[in-house]
Amino acid sequence: MIERKGSILTVREDIKVFDCTIRDGGLVNNFHFTDDFVKAQYETCVAAGIDYMEIGKNNSPSIMSEEEFGPWNFCKEEDIRRIVGNNDTNMKIAVMSDIGRTVNEELLPAEESVVDMIRIATYIHQIPAAIELVEEAHAKGYETTINIMAISKSFDDELTEVLETVAKSSVDVIYIADSFGSFYPEQINKLTEKYLTIAQAHGKQIGIHAHNNMQLAYANTIEALTYGTSFLDVTISGLGRGAGNCPMELLIGFLKNPKYKLMPVLKFIEEFIIPLEKELDWGYSIPYMLTGQLNEHPRAAMKARDEKDTNYRDFYRNLLAE
Amino acid sequence: MIERKGSILTVREDIKVFDCTIRDGGLVNNFHFTDDFVKAQYETCVAAGIDYMEIGKNNSPSIMSEEEFGPWNFCKEEDIRRIVGNNDTNMKIAVMSDIGRTVNEELLPAEESVVDMIRIATYIHQIPAAIELVEEAHAKGYETTINIMAISKSFDDELTEVLETVAKSSVDVIYIADSFGSFYPEQINKLTEKYLTIAQAHGKQIGIHAHNNMQLAYANTIEALTYGTSFLDVTISGLGRGAGNCPMELLIGFLKNPKYKLMPVLKFIEEFIIPLEKELDWGYSIPYMLTGQLNEHPRAAMKARDEKDTNYRDFYRNLLAE
Repeated sequence: MIERKGSILTVREDIKVFDCTIRDGGLVNNFHFTDDFVKAQYETCVAAGIDYMEIGKNNSPSIMSEEEFGPWNFCKEEDIRRIVGNNDTNMKIAVMSDIGRTVNEELLPAEESVVDMIRIATYIHQIPAAIELVEEAHAKGYETTINIMAISKSFDDELTEVLETVAKSSVDVIYIADSFGSFYPEQINKLTEKYLTIAQAHGKQIGIHAHNNMQLAYANTIEALTYGTSFLDVTISGLGRGAGNCPMELLIGFLKNPKYKLMPVLKFIEEFIIPLEKELDWGYSIPYMLTGQLNEHPRAAMKARDEKDTNYRDFYRNLLAE
Repeated sequence: MIERKGSILTVREDIKVFDCTIRDGGLVNNFHFTDDFVKAQYETCVAAGIDYMEIGKNNSPSIMSEEEFGPWNFCKEEDIRRIVGNNDTNMKIAVMSDIGRTVNEELLPAEESVVDMIRIATYIHQIPAAIELVEEAHAKGYETTINIMAISKSFDDELTEVLETVAKSSVDVIYIADSFGSFYPEQINKLTEKYLTIAQAHGKQIGIHAHNNMQLAYANTIEALTYGTSFLDVTISGLGRGAGNCPMELLIGFLKNPKYKLMPVLKFIEEFIIPLEKELDWGYSIPYMLTGQLNEHPRAAMKARDEKDTNYRDFYRNLLAE
């Protein structure tokens, strides 16, 4: 059985708190955040001691519509710099690449960009394309992660093969992504052991990206970190698609490193999240709980929430009948 | 280290799902539930396969005001029977006794009552009175529990002494109560080991009553049950004081015993919880998170919520200055 790393009272220097408020939150509003919002979010992260901030996706405008999606779905260099300047801070900037929606050649060399890290979101069947992009981004000078999605639907031996393949690439961090918010802490424990064993054998670190369908995003993040996960994804107030993510303000309460500060996060919540909650819908609710319990994509739940449909029994019956 | 009992895929016959919606929810509205609400809640619990339902407190009308508090703060025999009749079901009925607010002599013999279990809520300094009541209730024919409150503020050796004393009484179940919602799963793990070791040596079982200040009520309940806790407190939609409790609908999703049914709970949520959410405030929010993180009574947070005060930074500063 896997062992605890450090204790509940100590600082673990390998821990990186990774903010993805704009990127995962962008899935709620098609990335239509105002510059004021994104700038305040950036300044909050810097003040709170956050290690990385993911400012959006670098999807290609040749593939996705700039009329439908706001700037943070594309993360053009000039848009990012409008917010972060040269980012003369200790915090690194990341963007996410969706396999199939990016054009590798559009990626600038790292020395011409304010971006430090490319995070690659991939399904298992896209792994060869993901590794191609890892190598391209690595050669251009970026840190890289691979976030393998929907693993709760994969076979265990398949996942092992994928992890072995990914670990042999130039990637720096391999992420456990609980795409459907369907994992329980003891499953996260086993996944942590599996990912960590393979990653460490190749000198890599691992990360966790949790969803809150069953009110377990924070608990699963703590479980993963306790057993050796280094990169911890959070969003302010859990802002993110569907049931949302592990809230930054909760994780900062748990971590013992004094560099992490809660007060700036509370300020952002007061000034930006409270108004946003009147406009956008995210976070735990019964439909998300049901898709999580059944290990299904939250699609149906997002629809029910959009339509303010509270016929939970019908919703559950339909899910069971699928 | 303590071992897992059973596995995530098996049925544990010792598990009892314990509903306390009316009792803990009563702390939100001074027990002013309509009979319709309580009856629907009772029928929901029966249909969902719940093992015990706590219908309120049996505080003495000689000590607390019947004008201020609704009937479920007193749980007179005729009030309970108006809802449950003779309770010809497989579900047992419980009431909670607050030490200092009950009159032991008012307790009917069990054969004259539809109540099966007396749960005794006590602070550490009240333990002798709690044991007196345990013995009285046991002699009168009831099952009994002792729920030791505010243990997150107690010294470890003191708690050991208390548990040793309680375990020697006639009590059936000893509860881990996370009164301030301040425990992390790994602390619940240690408490489970401590409680279980002492309880089992005296032939007793243990229970868990969690609060959701840090979105950990469900995770902590799973942690406790995984390592041998038998009695699991839940409320529908987490209805309960402050940040509320472990939601029944989440726990039923985790348990593998087919006797537990989700559909009746969804029905109750549709028909009774959705309207109630417009009237009453409970559940996770930033002020409760902050009192939980600081291991404080939720009192200040309840006041902030009542006053719709979202000056979270001031709230936090005041807590830190206390």
